[in-house]
Amino acid sequence: MSKEITSRAQDYSQWYNDLVIKGNLADYSAVRGCMVIKPYGFALWENMRDALDKMFKDTGHENAYFPLFVPKSLFEAEEKNAEGFAKECAVVTHYRLKSDPSKKGSLMVDPDAKLEEELVVRPTSEAIIWHTYKNWIQSYRDLPLLINQWANVVRWEMRTRLFLRTAEFLWQEGHTAHATSQEAVAEAEQMLHVYADFVENWMALPVIKGVKSESERFAGAVNTYCIEALMQDGKALQAGTSHFLGQNFAKAFDVKFSDKENKLDYVWATSWGVSTRLIGALVMAHSDDQGLILPPRIAPLQVVIVPIYKGDEQKAKIDARVKELVTQLKAIGVRVKYDDNDNARPGWKFAEYELKGVPIRIAIGARDLENNTVELARRDTKEKTTVSIDGLTDRISELLKEIQQSIYNKALSYRDAHITRADTWEEFEKLVNEKGGFISAHWDGTAETETKIKELSKATIRCIPIDNEMEEGKCVFTGKPSTQRVLFAQAY
Amino acid sequence: MSKEITSRAQDYSQWYNDLVIKGNLADYSAVRGCMVIKPYGFALWENMRDALDKMFKDTGHENAYFPLFVPKSLFEAEEKNAEGFAKECAVVTHYRLKSDPSKKGSLMVDPDAKLEEELVVRPTSEAIIWHTYKNWIQSYRDLPLLINQWANVVRWEMRTRLFLRTAEFLWQEGHTAHATSQEAVAEAEQMLHVYADFVENWMALPVIKGVKSESERFAGAVNTYCIEALMQDGKALQAGTSHFLGQNFAKAFDVKFSDKENKLDYVWATSWGVSTRLIGALVMAHSDDQGLILPPRIAPLQVVIVPIYKGDEQKAKIDARVKELVTQLKAIGVRVKYDDNDNARPGWKFAEYELKGVPIRIAIGARDLENNTVELARRDTKEKTTVSIDGLTDRISELLKEIQQSIYNKALSYRDAHITRADTWEEFEKLVNEKGGFISAHWDGTAETETKIKELSKATIRCIPIDNEMEEGKCVFTGKPSTQRVLFAQAY
Repeated sequence: MSKEITSRAQDYSQWYNDLVIKGNLADYSAVRGCMVIKPYGFALWENMRDALDKMFKDTGHENAYFPLFVPKSLFEAEEKNAEGFAKECAVVTHYRLKSDPSKKGSLMVDPDAKLEEELVVRPTSEAIIWHTYKNWIQSYRDLPLLINQWANVVRWEMRTRLFLRTAEFLWQEGHTAHATSQEAVAEAEQMLHVYADFVENWMALPVIKGVKSESERFAGAVNTYCIEALMQDGKALQAGTSHFLGQNFAKAFDVKFSDKENKLDYVWATSWGVSTRLIGALVMAHSDDQGLILPPRIAPLQVVIVPIYKGDEQKAKIDARVKELVTQLKAIGVRVKYDDNDNARPGWKFAEYELKGVPIRIAIGARDLENNTVELARRDTKEKTTVSIDGLTDRISELLKEIQQSIYNKALSYRDAHITRADTWEEFEKLVNEKGGFISAHWDGTAETETKIKELSKATIRCIPIDNEMEEGKCVFTGKPSTQRVLFAQAY
Repeated sequence: MSKEITSRAQDYSQWYNDLVIKGNLADYSAVRGCMVIKPYGFALWENMRDALDKMFKDTGHENAYFPLFVPKSLFEAEEKNAEGFAKECAVVTHYRLKSDPSKKGSLMVDPDAKLEEELVVRPTSEAIIWHTYKNWIQSYRDLPLLINQWANVVRWEMRTRLFLRTAEFLWQEGHTAHATSQEAVAEAEQMLHVYADFVENWMALPVIKGVKSESERFAGAVNTYCIEALMQDGKALQAGTSHFLGQNFAKAFDVKFSDKENKLDYVWATSWGVSTRLIGALVMAHSDDQGLILPPRIAPLQVVIVPIYKGDEQKAKIDARVKELVTQLKAIGVRVKYDDNDNARPGWKFAEYELKGVPIRIAIGARDLENNTVELARRDTKEKTTVSIDGLTDRISELLKEIQQSIYNKALSYRDAHITRADTWEEFEKLVNEKGGFISAHWDGTAETETKIKELSKATIRCIPIDNEMEEGKCVFTGKPSTQRVLFAQAY
């Protein structure tokens, strides 16, 4: 066997790390809390990024690029936003190193090169972008402004985990400007649906669309929409957020526009983002004790072909047959690799591609050639079937769709089986400690109760679903009246 | 008219800035030396990036992502590299801000959150990457390692110019590891050819492939290959570099591999990069006093269609005809826009798209509809022709290729007319001061002479062309013997 993977039952957290590292997605780095995204992990991210980018462009957005650094005075302009991020900011204070006279070959920060104003490494870009928008927006004709940026951001988190929470991460951040509140709200909601569409249909991961409670809102937002997914250990994971920012940033940066009647008003804003964190969600939601299970639509490799042979003659015959097959598969857009590396045996390769989550494995041997067949193995269900080579490309094309759907269905069944109602605090605690998942419970609407529930159970309000039914009830903790259930869970 | 552009004759430098800013490519930002890349400029960069990315992948490279920060102790490990970049490093010293007690609403760097070791914002990533490669490379089976990264880097330059020299810029950096010196040299040369291919065939900009003199070499390289282009003011611009790093980084980071005979040796390395600086080259090389001239293969918009009409009835007829045309053009992959915005008059639009460098403009009016024609205008030559709508898509497809070639030919003629031999110091000085361009002259091979020539003329050795003829001669400055001519120029 190739690499040892800790089982989920044994240690869920170690299982996750094993998959990320041994599955070649990412690696630790020399910088505290920062990771290296390895080629296989980055190819996955590229597929995700390209799909999202197309969805953004199809909804009228353009990409741009804004500076990595935010001068402190701009950073602090929107007070709530600044407060929310101040504790985790990497700060550039100097712009030069010099030789350290006390230590040959060493460098030291040059005290003469202190910046007049410190620069914050962007934890998010509202400040620098809204400062720029002030120059770009004068009239209603300049609106809406629909801009997205793919970038790296830094948040100096104390406890980090590969992909899920890293000091530096890659993301996209949309920043839009509108003439009316309604338009901005519609934009924030549209992007929530775009995210849900992507996560469900590309990542095969069902999500619940909702709104955050006030205390879980993005710092500086009037309203935060989110999509929440469920991992296999019963914990929730926030997979994306879309914020209606009201006029908060327009006021902080004095961005006004004149409307058709020549009246001046502050501009309305949204921002929305998803990050490399999604890769963590993908790994945790679908994989098993043998390794990753990647949905075909975003898998870097969709099909791997492994030859099984003795001697050069058999090999040559297999090569010829496979060459044809690879050409046919590439022609219909399948990402396929023929692994005829003779340094590794078939069994080792099987385990390796299982670990890497390649959706379909094709094995082809001398007997297969005689019978005009191959062996198809599905990564998700581990089913193996021997099938004719005739019509194989169509069959693979169909099977990739079937696997995509099947991975989604499995995650959906698990998720739906893990949304449970709690009507008493005892039920609530029992659910948190034993079953996990989302707990649908009444809440009295106060931040105080929310905080107490969090202290006692480590469960937070993940969201108030956007299509929530109104229902009279009593708060699961205080017994005070409530008009709707909200979803609680422990979360990543 | 729309926006005033300074002419080249009046002020070349201001002309460049006008094109970049009024042509909507980029804008100044609140951060010293950093720019904002606007949507139009970023769309251009995306086209360039995608073309390059495909070329990298076609030559076997994979993308990955490494941390933004380099701990100081790693940064200083390769001494020459560290020395070369130390003077322009942005340094993160703290990881938290806190409320400033002396000033309500203000933040200050929290002195309790000082990092134990300072972090350099990457000016280039050899150090962090080779530190990582140590864990990835054990055996010859792990080689070659062919990795590229698309990233932002920061070099705290004192004098900055939009695109040409900015404190933060976007680039790609390839970092490869090889078992032999020959393989690494071949890789460095291969990437030089890839860059030349891209710049010539996509950006329509002829380049000279060469090798840098020792003093112009990348800090830490054994040999630096480069491509050099010529701008319209007779100054050269380095458009891309590819470095053979020898075993310098492998030794600094102790990266060894065991070969087939189980002998340990240090790994051989290359690195290579091009950046958003290329956009500056593009602007300077091709544009005119009316605005940008963009080569069709990378232009964000290749064709713009402007309707000329009176009244809704005419407009409706034109719309119907154009809709058909747009569909046909999109079907063959042409990037086309129909600008029927009724807030601006045709004349204003014509000037605007001229400024933005859209290769082909189509105007269509009521008379055209009757005659089944349109007016085609080429941005590069400003030729206008009235042509039949029948077969228009083919004609446009051909014309785009013709324009691409024509822009290249024009730049090539200019460049070839500006490579001049100088055999005496008087000739050399006269050429630098009057004609500009590349000066082909003998040099005695010493850094001392190179420095003196630079001090007296501001001209540097741009490169020693890779296909250089050997020729006995005397150094243009010292009269000492020389075996070949090298290319001098003043440069950006």
